[in-house]
Amino acid sequence: MAGNSFGQAFRITTAGESHGRGNVVIIDGVPAGLSLDIEDLLPDLDRRRPGQSAIVTQRKEADTPEILSGVFEGKTTGTSIAILIRNEDQRSKDYSNIMDKYRPGHADYTFDAKYGTRDYRGGGRSSARETNVRVAAGAVAKKMLSELFGIHIIGYVKQVGNIIADIPQPQSVTMEQVEANIVRCPDPVKAQQMIALIDEVRKDQDSIGGVAELVATNVPAGWGEPVFDKLKADLGKAMFTLPAVLGVEYGIGFGCATMRGTQNNDIFRITPGSSSEKSGHITTDTNHHGGMLGGISSGMPIVMRCAIKPTSSLSREQDTVTRDGKTTTIATKGRHDPCLLPRFAPMGEAMIAVVLADHALRQRASRL
Amino acid sequence: MAGNSFGQAFRITTAGESHGRGNVVIIDGVPAGLSLDIEDLLPDLDRRRPGQSAIVTQRKEADTPEILSGVFEGKTTGTSIAILIRNEDQRSKDYSNIMDKYRPGHADYTFDAKYGTRDYRGGGRSSARETNVRVAAGAVAKKMLSELFGIHIIGYVKQVGNIIADIPQPQSVTMEQVEANIVRCPDPVKAQQMIALIDEVRKDQDSIGGVAELVATNVPAGWGEPVFDKLKADLGKAMFTLPAVLGVEYGIGFGCATMRGTQNNDIFRITPGSSSEKSGHITTDTNHHGGMLGGISSGMPIVMRCAIKPTSSLSREQDTVTRDGKTTTIATKGRHDPCLLPRFAPMGEAMIAVVLADHALRQRASRL
Amino acid sequence: MAGNSFGQAFRITTAGESHGRGNVVIIDGVPAGLSLDIEDLLPDLDRRRPGQSAIVTQRKEADTPEILSGVFEGKTTGTSIAILIRNEDQRSKDYSNIMDKYRPGHADYTFDAKYGTRDYRGGGRSSARETNVRVAAGAVAKKMLSELFGIHIIGYVKQVGNIIADIPQPQSVTMEQVEANIVRCPDPVKAQQMIALIDEVRKDQDSIGGVAELVATNVPAGWGEPVFDKLKADLGKAMFTLPAVLGVEYGIGFGCATMRGTQNNDIFRITPGSSSEKSGHITTDTNHHGGMLGGISSGMPIVMRCAIKPTSSLSREQDTVTRDGKTTTIATKGRHDPCLLPRFAPMGEAMIAVVLADHALRQRASRL
Amino acid sequence: MAGNSFGQAFRITTAGESHGRGNVVIIDGVPAGLSLDIEDLLPDLDRRRPGQSAIVTQRKEADTPEILSGVFEGKTTGTSIAILIRNEDQRSKDYSNIMDKYRPGHADYTFDAKYGTRDYRGGGRSSARETNVRVAAGAVAKKMLSELFGIHIIGYVKQVGNIIADIPQPQSVTMEQVEANIVRCPDPVKAQQMIALIDEVRKDQDSIGGVAELVATNVPAGWGEPVFDKLKADLGKAMFTLPAVLGVEYGIGFGCATMRGTQNNDIFRITPGSSSEKSGHITTDTNHHGGMLGGISSGMPIVMRCAIKPTSSLSREQDTVTRDGKTTTIATKGRHDPCLLPRFAPMGEAMIAVVLADHALRQRASRL
Repeated sequence: MAGNSFGQAFRITTAGESHGRGNVVIIDGVPAGLSLDIEDLLPDLDRRRPGQSAIVTQRKEADTPEILSGVFEGKTTGTSIAILIRNEDQRSKDYSNIMDKYRPGHADYTFDAKYGTRDYRGGGRSSARETNVRVAAGAVAKKMLSELFGIHIIGYVKQVGNIIADIPQPQSVTMEQVEANIVRCPDPVKAQQMIALIDEVRKDQDSIGGVAELVATNVPAGWGEPVFDKLKADLGKAMFTLPAVLGVEYGIGFGCATMRGTQNNDIFRITPGSSSEKSGHITTDTNHHGGMLGGISSGMPIVMRCAIKPTSSLSREQDTVTRDGKTTTIATKGRHDPCLLPRFAPMGEAMIAVVLADHALRQRASRL
Repeated sequence: MAGNSFGQAFRITTAGESHGRGNVVIIDGVPAGLSLDIEDLLPDLDRRRPGQSAIVTQRKEADTPEILSGVFEGKTTGTSIAILIRNEDQRSKDYSNIMDKYRPGHADYTFDAKYGTRDYRGGGRSSARETNVRVAAGAVAKKMLSELFGIHIIGYVKQVGNIIADIPQPQSVTMEQVEANIVRCPDPVKAQQMIALIDEVRKDQDSIGGVAELVATNVPAGWGEPVFDKLKADLGKAMFTLPAVLGVEYGIGFGCATMRGTQNNDIFRITPGSSSEKSGHITTDTNHHGGMLGGISSGMPIVMRCAIKPTSSLSREQDTVTRDGKTTTIATKGRHDPCLLPRFAPMGEAMIAVVLADHALRQRASRL
Repeated sequence: MAGNSFGQAFRITTAGESHGRGNVVIIDGVPAGLSLDIEDLLPDLDRRRPGQSAIVTQRKEADTPEILSGVFEGKTTGTSIAILIRNEDQRSKDYSNIMDKYRPGHADYTFDAKYGTRDYRGGGRSSARETNVRVAAGAVAKKMLSELFGIHIIGYVKQVGNIIADIPQPQSVTMEQVEANIVRCPDPVKAQQMIALIDEVRKDQDSIGGVAELVATNVPAGWGEPVFDKLKADLGKAMFTLPAVLGVEYGIGFGCATMRGTQNNDIFRITPGSSSEKSGHITTDTNHHGGMLGGISSGMPIVMRCAIKPTSSLSREQDTVTRDGKTTTIATKGRHDPCLLPRFAPMGEAMIAVVLADHALRQRASRL
Repeated sequence: MAGNSFGQAFRITTAGESHGRGNVVIIDGVPAGLSLDIEDLLPDLDRRRPGQSAIVTQRKEADTPEILSGVFEGKTTGTSIAILIRNEDQRSKDYSNIMDKYRPGHADYTFDAKYGTRDYRGGGRSSARETNVRVAAGAVAKKMLSELFGIHIIGYVKQVGNIIADIPQPQSVTMEQVEANIVRCPDPVKAQQMIALIDEVRKDQDSIGGVAELVATNVPAGWGEPVFDKLKADLGKAMFTLPAVLGVEYGIGFGCATMRGTQNNDIFRITPGSSSEKSGHITTDTNHHGGMLGGISSGMPIVMRCAIKPTSSLSREQDTVTRDGKTTTIATKGRHDPCLLPRFAPMGEAMIAVVLADHALRQRASRL
């Protein structure tokens, strides 16, 4: 009952550590007949990759994936797809001095408490490095969702520190707008302020938190399984599986606390002249419900936000304790992201894609 | 692949609708030998029960549970425990006028989109009525956690509208403080303001949102399963399975967005004179991490918050549409909660208990 | 990690003991829109019921099911269906004298070893009484399979002791032929011999084993999931979940041990004039493969056989031991089946139906 | 809902085809702290390997495993273990002539019916090649079972064609006896007859079936989960997941059909002078129950048998049909096993080990 699998009909199972041989994902449930090529995986892996810009970690990882199985003559066969990404830049020596120290904010202590042992080289399995194969699996899910349903998933930076982007229409944000700057914020003015802030904290040997926003459009109404596998529950879990996520909300989120029902309820409308399918043309004026009612998709854009804590690894010296209970100090000399937000978007998108792919397949079974 | 089960080692499976014969839960995985009696279930069911006070729905439901199996001579046998709660107050006539109308903010439309049909009597499976058996199962989980580990779980109201309780020490809140007032807020001054506000919105035929806070103390360090069944992920999902929850955060939550790493990192300390077990006496000065690091419990109190939207059912008239696409208006004449917060605490506690019971059993398998 | 659930897309979860309040099943995954009524459950429950004839146990159990949820206005709603069958004839006193004795061939000792405790009243959870709700769930599965695919499932007695029925065309056996005699053997001559043999062993205070054969026709080619959820694997497991089953085979079964490949291979043929669907008209001359190749259905009849041991409960005195390790003797005075075969057919059919319903839903997800 | 995972607490997930890049298994749930090295995997892989003797397929596959993750400094870390075995001998040209033909007895037709496509190079995912990573995972499970419980698992050939080995004490068979001859039969006289028979059918361009027997000793009493995950059910399923298995039985198996209860019941005995643990010294005189009562382990040796069909691939010409429905003939020119039995033992042992490892971990949660 360890927890290295996610999803039911579309299920990913992963293995790998930051400084082991590599990471691998087995994707189970991809239907036969989907075109799939290594090229489909590269764009998102590049967006997640260390060393991609001046404001992220300068570690070098090519993150070159190899599809080991499940694809034949360019098409999925319906059998399980394994993707391997070998580790290349394993500077274990960077970590040898922290072997017996618990890094504040990291899982060093909790892994030790759990297993009685830990791989002290850069976090082992608790490192965000394991997310590279999630991103690869997410690219497969995205392709399936795009081809079968026209679903589009996009993530971007909404807030860094006190700088909050102005994005009135989340469902209209384009990948071009997001990728137009290295912080991945579609508000170009705020993006520059964010970059400057990240640069400032980096020079200060510090780090900064933020909020990411994720949007999925064209999700059909009716996805999600009452009462425990509601779409909001599976999406919520998916976000919380990602490192450093301390909060998740959808639609109006925590803003609902101060709302009255008359304000918060999204009023249904008939969209005139739309598709002939009976329930296809029902929309809501507003989207406080973030695309899910009763935890089931409503056909409106799914809009979520994740709170991401500031990077725990600091090159500045901090107090801590050792495994055997002595007080000490620590400064993690590795090359770390001063802000996790710019690289978060592809991870968040990948997990949303995996959840939606799962529920796409599950929905097929809920009607005769 | 429907979604009526939750958990792995401690697993609950439920069935039932608001206006059917009743609701039932099967609890799988309770170890043999635990003392269990119907009396163990009643306190939390009473706290969830409609009609318990002037500020909640005035529906009458006795919510009397029957333990059908799995208990013999006052002890659990290790086999599956079924608990049945029959429905009593089934005023179907209250709902007949809304048979073809989609209530704003409810799952009427999304259920129709999903299944092509729905039980229009009060929400059917999408009604919060199904949570009564979750609360019963939670009481079983709580008993196991309390007896085996001394774990204590408590939920209370943190915020209603703009009124925010002042609770500096979540881990010190007692059940007596919470149950001292009908809104279940341990800050007695703010509790009275909340009650007055709820009374005001009720008279106004409106409803109001809020925030609940949930705390689990004495959870051992080391629970949670990397990388997908992190404790934060399973707890997050559990909260999002509950009706009306639009946001979940733990520890500092969304407050982390404006924090620097130097501020946010909780510094490890050795608690002098404590237990001899090596890692048992490590704590942190602050608890921004909400009791989980790398998604695994740290031994510090687990602190979570849920944003709860204002009740969607309003007796005031609202615009909406019918199943066959006509514009209409709706006023839901049933007896509804003007604020969901007072009855939320036992539901939230129950789901936290189910997750912790699951991970308690799962943790047994992670070490030789 | 207890084991009270079976199936994935069509999943049953059960609870209940022989002498508790009753047994309950929750069926998760039945698509919305299927007509379902209590009348659909009764025929198979009657075929499983104690006291139905002179050659089965004379216990009286009406086995009246109540559908608690998931059906509205005569149709399934897509949400979980709970069915409750209360226990009526709970003669606990029959068992009080065996409270500390381990009945040979029963699970008394193994349950004690597992849980450290057991419900000594008639086997508790290890009693075959729990199969009544499986049969109810199987009736739901059968209805779905029949309406969606025209699948027909039938079980009957192939062998009792040394008497082996002559059934050259398993796929042609009708329910009328099976139900024409109380032993449920479609070979009328051998049926009478079986009945006489069962009567003889009963008078002798003994019991007798046998073999049941189960056939499913009209199963489409392509069901089953490589490599672990092959149809043969899930059907094999399903049969082994039933009490007293010591062996399972399909097609030629153990007879394959003496076959050469040239004899055993079933040669593919084109059935002229059949359906236009490309692979729909391929059959095999013989059916040594029992309807499954590579563990996936071939479209040919699925034919399985189960070896059922003689009833372990004997009213004749046998040596045994007590819980605290003393030698003693035991004679189980309850009313037991002298042969389990006549009542096995509906149980076996039910489990086959549950597996096929599961794979019917799962197959929907394996192609774009 | 595809089926590439097996087990719950100890879970394996696999991917790979006969002629793809390789096969990979992710093992989830191995507790931390187990010594594990590549050397632990090699002996069983060698026993499964093609080309190992004159009576098996002469394909050359080194089957060299690489442990990608989950092991650090020679010990398991508690996180998921990935093992990769690359394919080396991929003579795709051997199969090009059968691209559109359905090989009798193979999964070619059923895969096409399932997925609408298939990897025609040697069976793809339906090839027994995928079992190499199962054997690797089984070696990990065996090591855990041996170190924690002293469990020993052994498989051997019981029957080939009409030649049946005389093995009165299955629990006493040693690995030395099994590996003393190339057919893996511990009866040395019958082993020579089996080898001669296999050689004869090979020369005759034919193949022959048989029966394997598998024994697990030192399994503690109490393993297995009522009512669906009984040990007999999970072991039964495990055996049926293996290619070519048409029948599974345990204990007296199909022999029970002709037994009376008085003959078949295994009488409990107290073993004098044994361990002080209360239920530890209860055994049975005979072992008709094959080590499982009520589907739960009794502490007696677990004894199972599998019927294995003759290899379907024959170099002799057979009738068949093409994908587009034309009659043709086929002779599979690849290098195939004339009898699958000699290489079956490690596969069967591996699956038994995986099931027992799963239930070992699951049993930890069934008692307080």
